[in-house]
Amino acid sequence: MQEHVQDNTEKCKKIAERLYELDGEVYNCVGSSLGRTFTGERENCIRDLTLLMCTKPDGHLLRSEMALISNMARTIKNKEERKRLMMKYDSILQEVAALPNTFGSVDVLDIARAKLNTSNLRQKFSKEDHLVICIGRTQGSAGNDIGFALADELRINYYDAEIFDQVMKRLEADKDSVNDVASFTNFDKYRKKRGIHLKAWMRDFNRYHGLPKQDAVFFNMSDLICSMARSEDCIIMGRCADAILRNNNIPHISIFIDAPFAVRMQRIMESRNMSYKQAVRFLKKMDKQHKRYYEFYAGEEWGNTENYDLCINSASYGMKETVDMIERMIQQ
Amino acid sequence: MQEHVQDNTEKCKKIAERLYELDGEVYNCVGSSLGRTFTGERENCIRDLTLLMCTKPDGHLLRSEMALISNMARTIKNKEERKRLMMKYDSILQEVAALPNTFGSVDVLDIARAKLNTSNLRQKFSKEDHLVICIGRTQGSAGNDIGFALADELRINYYDAEIFDQVMKRLEADKDSVNDVASFTNFDKYRKKRGIHLKAWMRDFNRYHGLPKQDAVFFNMSDLICSMARSEDCIIMGRCADAILRNNNIPHISIFIDAPFAVRMQRIMESRNMSYKQAVRFLKKMDKQHKRYYEFYAGEEWGNTENYDLCINSASYGMKETVDMIERMIQQ
Repeated sequence: MQEHVQDNTEKCKKIAERLYELDGEVYNCVGSSLGRTFTGERENCIRDLTLLMCTKPDGHLLRSEMALISNMARTIKNKEERKRLMMKYDSILQEVAALPNTFGSVDVLDIARAKLNTSNLRQKFSKEDHLVICIGRTQGSAGNDIGFALADELRINYYDAEIFDQVMKRLEADKDSVNDVASFTNFDKYRKKRGIHLKAWMRDFNRYHGLPKQDAVFFNMSDLICSMARSEDCIIMGRCADAILRNNNIPHISIFIDAPFAVRMQRIMESRNMSYKQAVRFLKKMDKQHKRYYEFYAGEEWGNTENYDLCINSASYGMKETVDMIERMIQQ
Repeated sequence: MQEHVQDNTEKCKKIAERLYELDGEVYNCVGSSLGRTFTGERENCIRDLTLLMCTKPDGHLLRSEMALISNMARTIKNKEERKRLMMKYDSILQEVAALPNTFGSVDVLDIARAKLNTSNLRQKFSKEDHLVICIGRTQGSAGNDIGFALADELRINYYDAEIFDQVMKRLEADKDSVNDVASFTNFDKYRKKRGIHLKAWMRDFNRYHGLPKQDAVFFNMSDLICSMARSEDCIIMGRCADAILRNNNIPHISIFIDAPFAVRMQRIMESRNMSYKQAVRFLKKMDKQHKRYYEFYAGEEWGNTENYDLCINSASYGMKETVDMIERMIQQ
């Protein structure tokens, strides 16, 4: 073990020497006004560099030193010289990357998460797995239009709230038994129930196996979402589908589409013929409803970057380019 | 004008009729247990559909109806039939898309924002514009490693806090005048200043033109960032570079890299040799510092999806695939 450490230090020292010399060579070629990256005595520099290569937690400082050298090397005017020195740099970088404790040696991959990420692991998939894209979005960010256009481009099925509603209505063959749009629109777990007669309440209680109606709707829909994701390629808008599929270990990509409030306002006013005041009220109400619904059923913060694989600002791209970008991203 | 509206209604009615017939044909082919999409009387259905095509705000319901039909059509087993009906569907969809008030007719593009988005408009760029990628990230999300690897792949310059620090130190040719890392680490606008003698305070006051030292550092750095972004392709880590470039109207792509707290914890413990307790304290402190710094200088919420072009969960992809994905995305 002791010998192993000794070996490693020797190796690091050699890399440090090469790096120090490269810095000198680059400086001679480019003659930067900023001077060399390593300004101290040769021996001190090499000792410090060697230490950086095997020291935690400051090992990442080496990354900045190396970037400084390569940034400078790339500005060398003489093409031959630039190529020669960049090749030297690349070979040193490779050796640094191969060191056991260097910067970048600890990945950030969450294996459980990545296993469910279709875009990441598509090539490793079995034939039974499907391309399922869950899209969450804020009202007015054109998320539904983007999802619909994406489904059309990819030639896969598209499901949104209205479609779930229709499908479930028909599956139940009971017009008023299950209405997910209504359950979402009126979603308020803690609002006092007004004007519900005991008789109606008892009837609903029996029909939904003792669950509150909106919970029963949610569980039925979860089943539907899971069985769809297991049987076909599709795009699912909202409905906490990302959380449902994650909890059921079904591979998918989760995307959140958002745009600045001011841009969403503009779009809502235009597409829904609303006044400024109406649009503000409408957007705030919808954001609140989405947030509540997601946080209650998914148990996570709606729109928080760490809950999705990817978040896209549709205002920066527009509808068409957002669709194109998602396509480029999932292509392998 | 009146005539024009009349014309439009006639056109919508014709499209509605074709859609109604397509639904019937698809149903005959596929024999879905769910039945037809349009279940009512022919005339009522066509009237409703016609209305949907020119009515706000409920026009988007048409999108769901059309998706239901195409979802069903795609399941037709007979290949010839499927192709024939999908072509019919495509031609109807095109006509609907060409209607003046239909769903998807109002884009979400923010022109000011998109003009600055290099990934979106790269092909329209003049030769003077550069590929500048600003990367914000949470501590432990491997953002710096990803930025460094991306710069290496794209063969462009990489700048992080340590590099800015070194460059600025040398530009000022004054060892203790400007230290951005220190100004970030100790960033606390409202903390009471302890142990600063009047003399030292006066010296700093004069040196920074009467600005608080950390503000002077920030303004110097802003100048540096702008002049770099104007003169070369590069990747800039943190430092509110996205906000600085946006305020100065310089094209760039802004990306935020994040990972779930638990994953970042794991990575920090490993890469920095920290105990669980140390890592929690460290991460919480760094998140708070990043947040404060960004919100003070950028004036916007740190990590909020609507402030960036794109947010990526590095835990879903790992370092290498995150780099590859960004490359695919910016490729035109």
